[in-house]
Amino acid sequence: MGSGNFKIPGFLFAGISAGIKKNGKKDLALIYSEVPAQVAGIFTTNAVKAAPVRIGMERIKKGVGQAVIINSGNANACTGSQGLKDARKISSLVARGLGINEKLIFPASTGIIGVPLPLQKFEDGVPELIRSLARDGWMNTVEAIMTTDAFPKIAAANCRVKGKSVKLCGMVKGAGMIRPNMATMLSFLVTDANIKASLLQKMLQKAAEVSYNSITVDGDTSTNDTVLLFANGVAGHPRLTHMDRDGEVFQSMLNKVCGNLAKSVVKDGEGATKFVEILVSGAKNREDAKKAAYAIGHSPLVKTAFFGEDANWGRILCALGYSGARIHPDRVDVLFNQYPIVKNGMGVGGKLEEKAGKVLKEKTFRISVNLHQGRASFLLFTTDLSFEYVKINASYRS
Amino acid sequence: MGSGNFKIPGFLFAGISAGIKKNGKKDLALIYSEVPAQVAGIFTTNAVKAAPVRIGMERIKKGVGQAVIINSGNANACTGSQGLKDARKISSLVARGLGINEKLIFPASTGIIGVPLPLQKFEDGVPELIRSLARDGWMNTVEAIMTTDAFPKIAAANCRVKGKSVKLCGMVKGAGMIRPNMATMLSFLVTDANIKASLLQKMLQKAAEVSYNSITVDGDTSTNDTVLLFANGVAGHPRLTHMDRDGEVFQSMLNKVCGNLAKSVVKDGEGATKFVEILVSGAKNREDAKKAAYAIGHSPLVKTAFFGEDANWGRILCALGYSGARIHPDRVDVLFNQYPIVKNGMGVGGKLEEKAGKVLKEKTFRISVNLHQGRASFLLFTTDLSFEYVKINASYRS
Repeated sequence: MGSGNFKIPGFLFAGISAGIKKNGKKDLALIYSEVPAQVAGIFTTNAVKAAPVRIGMERIKKGVGQAVIINSGNANACTGSQGLKDARKISSLVARGLGINEKLIFPASTGIIGVPLPLQKFEDGVPELIRSLARDGWMNTVEAIMTTDAFPKIAAANCRVKGKSVKLCGMVKGAGMIRPNMATMLSFLVTDANIKASLLQKMLQKAAEVSYNSITVDGDTSTNDTVLLFANGVAGHPRLTHMDRDGEVFQSMLNKVCGNLAKSVVKDGEGATKFVEILVSGAKNREDAKKAAYAIGHSPLVKTAFFGEDANWGRILCALGYSGARIHPDRVDVLFNQYPIVKNGMGVGGKLEEKAGKVLKEKTFRISVNLHQGRASFLLFTTDLSFEYVKINASYRS
Repeated sequence: MGSGNFKIPGFLFAGISAGIKKNGKKDLALIYSEVPAQVAGIFTTNAVKAAPVRIGMERIKKGVGQAVIINSGNANACTGSQGLKDARKISSLVARGLGINEKLIFPASTGIIGVPLPLQKFEDGVPELIRSLARDGWMNTVEAIMTTDAFPKIAAANCRVKGKSVKLCGMVKGAGMIRPNMATMLSFLVTDANIKASLLQKMLQKAAEVSYNSITVDGDTSTNDTVLLFANGVAGHPRLTHMDRDGEVFQSMLNKVCGNLAKSVVKDGEGATKFVEILVSGAKNREDAKKAAYAIGHSPLVKTAFFGEDANWGRILCALGYSGARIHPDRVDVLFNQYPIVKNGMGVGGKLEEKAGKVLKEKTFRISVNLHQGRASFLLFTTDLSFEYVKINASYRS
């Protein structure tokens, strides 16, 4: 759903170029709610956490927030106590400019690791940033949080909660599956729904499981990954405090929006030419299904074969074999879209195999694996591995 | 040490083109001991095991063998019961030709998965193969087991055991670190030492830990990986049956030869332009050191940065952060060769960082990480990730 002019009552957006990125592109963004909002957040599980993540994790405990200040071009990670000081300083600059409490501000950063933030550029840029806040400033914000992204990624939806129309708008920054990519993923969602922070947090975690967590692995995240959801209540319905039918309606909208954002991250896989769904079913349990799906989705040999449109299903079976999931090689079936290519662990051969192989020529396809060990399944979104990926990541800093 | 003319008493070698590979290169090899030898073997831990691996695992139980028949161009994996039948048929062809018991023959295969072996080519080729057995046929054998290898990989050494001169010669086939590569690794070693199979097995496992297992991860292996060590006893010293001082001398030679073979596999990383040692020290335990080293060595972001000669140490810290090893980000030190680049989790900055960064311009360098958590360490050999890697693996079958 397009959302260039999608306004969310009570929210303002801005994005400017403050000179943090060397190429002069937009690099400083602000999301502001006119009233304090209930906030839910998910942060990286990486043991190395960037300064803004550490501050965000502290501030989210209160469940209230009013603004997010985001910069691209510098991750403020591995910057020690100076990094924390810098991130706090930026919050206070924004707080002063907006006339609100510093604790209501969530900082987020993405970009190069290990380089101190150019603080002066924030001091110079924040006043202009605040001046340019606008109800329809959404696209400026999205542009300013991009790094290696090939296109801006947004999603929006609306539904009715307690008789009121409620809007939800989200943006995400990040390209490619986190592994092999490990690019930082930042996602910000805003809604005018009125939902208590504790419930909002549960809802966000549920949505993440079928979206962001289906493109990455728990623990396998960058130093800066952050997802924040602001609910400012401006829609005016009675506050949702526990899950009910209206909550389910909102949850389902949230799942959809997060799902679309996550898929757009995969589709923007750095240099990716294919969008691939990997569905593992018939696993003993969900953990096994996940292991199997990720072994396939992470295998550079499988991914380069996708890029080469080479129906080398042996690499898929090989990946299953070392995945750690319980398998019986002689029971495994594999389909490319609806076409069987492996039956009972062996190639179907001849014309049938040729037909399945042709699926790889498409831009988007599904690899379905049935382990015939049980009833659990897992759906993973991934891409191929192309020349372009190596090119982008070999020269990221230069 | 060169070994083109390195003969091992009692062993004969052959390698011919039997038409299994489409490009007409050598693809069928034979190693033959004139007398039954004690045999040790290590086979893939992948749950999907190729037919020859399943036969080898069965035959090694007796600890005796006299020949290895190896083909490249076809892995005979995921070929079901027909694959087992085919591998047995080939053993029996060789057994008949050599006039020895079929059970003394170990089959090995590498190449495309899921395609039945072209049995007729073996029937036609085996007699010629046996006719061409020669004491100095070593290089023909090495060439015939190669697939994507850019160069033949051999190592040789000698030592004294119980007063006799003893020779050891080894070859390996495989290119690149197993992950991201997952190419099959085959290694065959022959010695005229006289060592009981049970001791030989222990020695081979010890040697593998500091060689083959330092370029791959347990369980993260292809369908066909096989290491075989034949000791035919022709040197004539009393049989070693348990570890003693002479055993230690042999062990140390074996470690060195296996280590050199393993390193040459990494140096032949598919399209690799850099050979990188990753030394993690100061870990809580060896498991943690291994996790940390592999997180760095497996990270495509780190590997593409090596290729781009970009001293992006933030990616190293990020990989450590999700490795699962116990770390305190603020205690981590990183050196590029002898030059510090990260101290207490932060870049050393300025000229010092520049100096360390220049190390990446070299062909071979060491990344040393000290976690300052304990005393355990692990040394991993790996490569960069280049355009060439994607190219080779996108078009392997075509």
